[in-house]
Amino acid sequence: MTSELLLPALNSARKGRAEGGIPIGAALYVEGAIVSTGRNRRQQLGSVIRHAEMDCLEHAGRLPAGAYTKATMVTTLSPCDMCTGAILLYRIPHVVIGENRSYRGAEDLLRERGVQVDVLDDQACTLLMQEFMAEFPSLWNEDIGVL
Amino acid sequence: MTSELLLPALNSARKGRAEGGIPIGAALYVEGAIVSTGRNRRQQLGSVIRHAEMDCLEHAGRLPAGAYTKATMVTTLSPCDMCTGAILLYRIPHVVIGENRSYRGAEDLLRERGVQVDVLDDQACTLLMQEFMAEFPSLWNEDIGVL
Repeated sequence: MTSELLLPALNSARKGRAEGGIPIGAALYVEGAIVSTGRNRRQQLGSVIRHAEMDCLEHAGRLPAGAYTKATMVTTLSPCDMCTGAILLYRIPHVVIGENRSYRGAEDLLRERGVQVDVLDDQACTLLMQEFMAEFPSLWNEDIGVL
Repeated sequence: MTSELLLPALNSARKGRAEGGIPIGAALYVEGAIVSTGRNRRQQLGSVIRHAEMDCLEHAGRLPAGAYTKATMVTTLSPCDMCTGAILLYRIPHVVIGENRSYRGAEDLLRERGVQVDVLDDQACTLLMQEFMAEFPSLWNEDIGVL
């Protein structure tokens, strides 16, 4: 059963899938309250930088530095190098990952830099991603810079 | 004297300054030909993800993975964690940096991951950045997640 914390990110991922996009979603919480959600919008916007976590940060808008340092980034899939870098730039201390079976990003770098990383191994996130990857392998490879 | 390779990025940075923005610019070259430029647009778009390198990647659009692996990212200032992550995601093998006196980003991580990093120590880039930082210290701190 998907945790309540993860649900807004999972719902965003499902929304992305319904739009024909890459089904990865994210949600940003500050001091336990949800501030924004986001979803991968490569297909929808023709964007190479709107991964779910980036879209979520953009939707949150310009926050004071001190808000990010009390934040948790929740994402349905293990964050890639770019999204990891954004989390490090803004010093977000906590990342919750729905699953890392379909793709494993830069979790080690996050931990090395002192970020708490929790992996939920959520079956709904994994199923959504696996179905997508099987159906659209080249779109998925494009999203993670793979030939 | 600013190198020809750096000029489009420096001109983009100057354009950003003229708009009231943070004066950092970037340019993406693929096999020696310029593909796009970008500039930090935090102020202009209210964006927390449109650093110069990100804006430049977005302007380049959806390139095949093989184009990025023949690319050079030129930027007026040492890339932060987020922009470094984007460079690593897309496996861009070469980064040219105007200057790193005003701010030193994740150059070590780039080199560890096999990226060639050249620092030009360009005086025009440094002067542009130093003047901006002296005039708008809080805007600059916001851009790099500093309290």
